[in-house]
Amino acid sequence: MPSTAAPAALRTVTRRATRGDAYGYAEVVTFPVVGMVGGGQLARMTHEAGIPLGIRFRLLSGTPQDSAALAVRDVVVGDHNDLATLRDFARGCDVITFDHEHVPTEHLRALEADGIPVRPGPDALVHAQDKGVMRARLDSLGVGCPRHRIVRDPADVAAFAAEVADADGAGADGAAQDAGFPVPVVLKTVRGGYDGKGVWVVRTAAEAAVPFKAGVPVLAEEKVDFARELAACVVRSPHGQAVAYPVVESVQVGGVCDTVIAPAPGLPDDEAVQAQEMALRIAQELGVVGHMAVELFETPDGRVLVNELAMRPHNSGHWTQDGAVTSQFANHLRAVLDLPLGDPRPRARWTVMANVLGGDYPDMYSAYRHCMARDPQLKIHMYGKDVKPGRKVGHVNTYGDDLADVRERAAHAAGYLRGTITE
Amino acid sequence: MPSTAAPAALRTVTRRATRGDAYGYAEVVTFPVVGMVGGGQLARMTHEAGIPLGIRFRLLSGTPQDSAALAVRDVVVGDHNDLATLRDFARGCDVITFDHEHVPTEHLRALEADGIPVRPGPDALVHAQDKGVMRARLDSLGVGCPRHRIVRDPADVAAFAAEVADADGAGADGAAQDAGFPVPVVLKTVRGGYDGKGVWVVRTAAEAAVPFKAGVPVLAEEKVDFARELAACVVRSPHGQAVAYPVVESVQVGGVCDTVIAPAPGLPDDEAVQAQEMALRIAQELGVVGHMAVELFETPDGRVLVNELAMRPHNSGHWTQDGAVTSQFANHLRAVLDLPLGDPRPRARWTVMANVLGGDYPDMYSAYRHCMARDPQLKIHMYGKDVKPGRKVGHVNTYGDDLADVRERAAHAAGYLRGTITE
Repeated sequence: MPSTAAPAALRTVTRRATRGDAYGYAEVVTFPVVGMVGGGQLARMTHEAGIPLGIRFRLLSGTPQDSAALAVRDVVVGDHNDLATLRDFARGCDVITFDHEHVPTEHLRALEADGIPVRPGPDALVHAQDKGVMRARLDSLGVGCPRHRIVRDPADVAAFAAEVADADGAGADGAAQDAGFPVPVVLKTVRGGYDGKGVWVVRTAAEAAVPFKAGVPVLAEEKVDFARELAACVVRSPHGQAVAYPVVESVQVGGVCDTVIAPAPGLPDDEAVQAQEMALRIAQELGVVGHMAVELFETPDGRVLVNELAMRPHNSGHWTQDGAVTSQFANHLRAVLDLPLGDPRPRARWTVMANVLGGDYPDMYSAYRHCMARDPQLKIHMYGKDVKPGRKVGHVNTYGDDLADVRERAAHAAGYLRGTITE
Repeated sequence: MPSTAAPAALRTVTRRATRGDAYGYAEVVTFPVVGMVGGGQLARMTHEAGIPLGIRFRLLSGTPQDSAALAVRDVVVGDHNDLATLRDFARGCDVITFDHEHVPTEHLRALEADGIPVRPGPDALVHAQDKGVMRARLDSLGVGCPRHRIVRDPADVAAFAAEVADADGAGADGAAQDAGFPVPVVLKTVRGGYDGKGVWVVRTAAEAAVPFKAGVPVLAEEKVDFARELAACVVRSPHGQAVAYPVVESVQVGGVCDTVIAPAPGLPDDEAVQAQEMALRIAQELGVVGHMAVELFETPDGRVLVNELAMRPHNSGHWTQDGAVTSQFANHLRAVLDLPLGDPRPRARWTVMANVLGGDYPDMYSAYRHCMARDPQLKIHMYGKDVKPGRKVGHVNTYGDDLADVRERAAHAAGYLRGTITE
């Protein structure tokens, strides 16, 4: 299974060229400043990956106690929704990138107009910000998606449910709006959702009324009867080089990623390659720069449908920190700096990532002693966040040749840190 | 070749114990603060390794532009020779550790008297600070060292040279002090030297006069006719667990480490194990906590003699960042926090580290493009330092199955970054 795309031809680099010539940076011989918008754990781990590159890292963080703000030297505390704050932050940066997708598109365009490279740019990023735009664009590319439609009210949802049932041959009966739908429907606000927030599964018109209360556009999607969830992660540079990581399996619990297995067990090579090629094609067509995760449903008959796009480092790529030659965070930085990308291939037969959620027992540090003594190969990644029930506060990575062993070690450590295992 | 020492029995950890009971920390449920004295690259890379542990890292740095100060959130700028500064710095820390060995012993004792854990402690650290103390202690342990003696003046040096020549059967002739010595002698100031500084190789009484001018004690050592230099790195915890990394070969150029090869090519297993056991024994006898590098001379007849001790992360362990399951930096932190140590075993057949020294061409960043495109598996580690000729400003790691290839890739990248290769 190929996991590296053939790199595009690299431009010839003159050894003594000043950076100002080729890259549009200031005509100074120094390391660039990467401005990261958002102080979450993705920013924290991107900073960690940037330290070896010697680059300078500047953070725009909502509070001084955000995960990344605890570990970065150069922190600006401010609101990413405020254009003046963004402009002031960007002034000292050679490039701007993101920990999340919440910066308004018009602000990104304003930064670009100021001459600041924004990567990924607003035209790409909008596909990760607005699910309606994303679905329309993927349709135009012929990329497989769940059936979907922008809906205006519960009657629209009922009609959509009937159509889906009809197409599936599920015995649609033109159900009245107030009765149950013939098939359940997934409703999503087109902007602002994550980790199951902003997503509803509805079966009646009464249930379908809830998402409309916020007054934002709502996307209806068929509830795919998937066999499992996969993710295809790719990284793309402004000059067009791209790499694809192995396709992984993402095990969700309660709408939140619980475990990622790299590579996805039992996935036929041709399906894996197709998913990688599809992700690379989406990245190219949308002009993505940086890391992109394509969340996929694998259907029982072996097709894949795109669930979501994320244009930033992503939970489904955390395994790369310890399991790949180059982590998603290092490659994201290399991409936004238009540096040649690093090898995305795995270093172990199997790598498993398990998220650590907050539980009832807040002292995770004391649990280190057990976890580290039990498994000297365990890799713990904590985010410096306060422990709150259900909150993602860290993850663990394990790797090795025996998948059952690797999974057990990851699950044990994550469970012990959370407090659900107390052997 | 075993590369892990059997861990000492770990104390039984009660899951719900408060940290205050077992570890003497404050009775609060939170992650500890590690205070790092010294703002160099070792501190920078220790911070990088500490981010995933979720610990809080506090830095005492000589300037705000020191290598580590550029990457750490919580920086105190001050002089490590000033006790009031140290005390103020240490007040918010759960443990103090070091980027260098330059803090005066009496200050460390004062911090300990204040109730701050200092790791390694002053009684251990003095062996890495004072070469006279180190030699006397290794002698008492029966550890092989070059012949040595504290000398008071050039006449002492001449007498030492005559004795060494006599013992070697090198045709000593009771050479007059003003004539050449029968064998060259290495003179070292007992404190303050590093990377060839504070070290002289002398052949005449006139040359031997130079080191005495500083008015500090001088150690004379025989100039060992070594086949190569090795290093045995170990990590030890307060509770007595210890691990040994594979013995490496350290290739020196001009008294400065140029390349490290892990493991040392062609080193017989029994010699490697002996060197590891010796390093573990030294760590135990001296009460070392944290990472210790034992720099070794391998003689043509296969014996090893101790050259130097360093009680901190060390250049000969930089390969572990990409080549071992657990890096020296992560294990140093785990040791000073008295956490169980991580697996020190290699992840690749061969790993090679090559130092990047400053050259005539200051724009190392523009060289990234060539280096990364040529070798997508290359791991670059830059320190954020200004480029000055001969200054260590970074290193690269490469790994793989073919030693010649791995060496060539490391040497090429280091040379290209420095500017000595301009293909």
